[in-house]
Amino acid sequence: MPSKGELTREKVLEEAARVFHRKGFLTTTVNDLLEVTGTTKGNLYFHFSGKEDVGLEVLRRAKENFRRFLCDSLQGESPGAQLENFFVQVLKRNRDKGFIGGCMFGNTALEASDNAPAFVEVVSEVFAEWIGLLEEPLTAAQAGGQIRSDLPAFQLAEMIVASIEGGIMQSRLQKAEGPLLRTLDSLRVLLALES
Amino acid sequence: MPSKGELTREKVLEEAARVFHRKGFLTTTVNDLLEVTGTTKGNLYFHFSGKEDVGLEVLRRAKENFRRFLCDSLQGESPGAQLENFFVQVLKRNRDKGFIGGCMFGNTALEASDNAPAFVEVVSEVFAEWIGLLEEPLTAAQAGGQIRSDLPAFQLAEMIVASIEGGIMQSRLQKAEGPLLRTLDSLRVLLALES
Repeated sequence: MPSKGELTREKVLEEAARVFHRKGFLTTTVNDLLEVTGTTKGNLYFHFSGKEDVGLEVLRRAKENFRRFLCDSLQGESPGAQLENFFVQVLKRNRDKGFIGGCMFGNTALEASDNAPAFVEVVSEVFAEWIGLLEEPLTAAQAGGQIRSDLPAFQLAEMIVASIEGGIMQSRLQKAEGPLLRTLDSLRVLLALES
Repeated sequence: MPSKGELTREKVLEEAARVFHRKGFLTTTVNDLLEVTGTTKGNLYFHFSGKEDVGLEVLRRAKENFRRFLCDSLQGESPGAQLENFFVQVLKRNRDKGFIGGCMFGNTALEASDNAPAFVEVVSEVFAEWIGLLEEPLTAAQAGGQIRSDLPAFQLAEMIVASIEGGIMQSRLQKAEGPLLRTLDSLRVLLALES
């Protein structure tokens, strides 16, 4: 059974994740954290060394969660079907969030790139892992003739990640699914995906 | 001849643009502005009603600047050549900045989408204008057989903007031109661009 301290720590991380996701790691203040978590300053600093410590733990957990999402969504009877299912799940995941918050990793990439190396490190790992996980079914789909073969699988994986990040950005800005929906639709056509 | 007050205002906007670009509009504080501009609080508030006022003016000027960049780079003897020149200039523009700061509009889209409606409005206008300016040569290039015609020009324009934003994000994160370079290279192949 988790101790009272562990429960407090979990509760802080859970509530903090929400405000970080919406406001960003750098813009969120310690006061924001105290307000949303309903905890005292003393309690917060008992469990964490500061805002960055909370933020990095939230980001690391989000990384694990996203890894599970990628592995779960890249499932299907053929490499083409795996990619198709991934596209479907990406739209669903973002639609379920009402296009609020967007992609925590994309947000953090943009706010932290020139300012916060510890965050950059985790986010870089997320994108490298994402590209690597896509590269496998893309290579297999090329071998099986289910997508075009005139660009390296790695480059296609990078392109898919870049355009999804841009599509999420536009959908979040417009609070409408259209941009991400059409980006995924374009990717299917441009890849010549047969699932 | 501009008055001393006008010169101060210009200087504040110029220096403020640099720190906003690197740190974002929401993360930058009034103290950051005072520090980089070397002005006093009284002087800053004489010229602007507050941080948001400075930020919005910086963003509006960046919008005008980007519009000129788009019009200047979408030049060429054919629609295909215009698109090719645009791709070349996008890479050059970001390389010249050393991939620091990235795209001010993309950054602002991600930091402001759920928090700062005044910024969202300007950024939305930038992206709508960018997509509109790309749609023209894309439509003409489709008519002239210089790019693929199986997706609407508007959808291709959206896809180009999304993937460039994602490519800039990745290049900025890695401080390397590779991701944006390959994104643009992929776009040429995926569009079947003949310039």
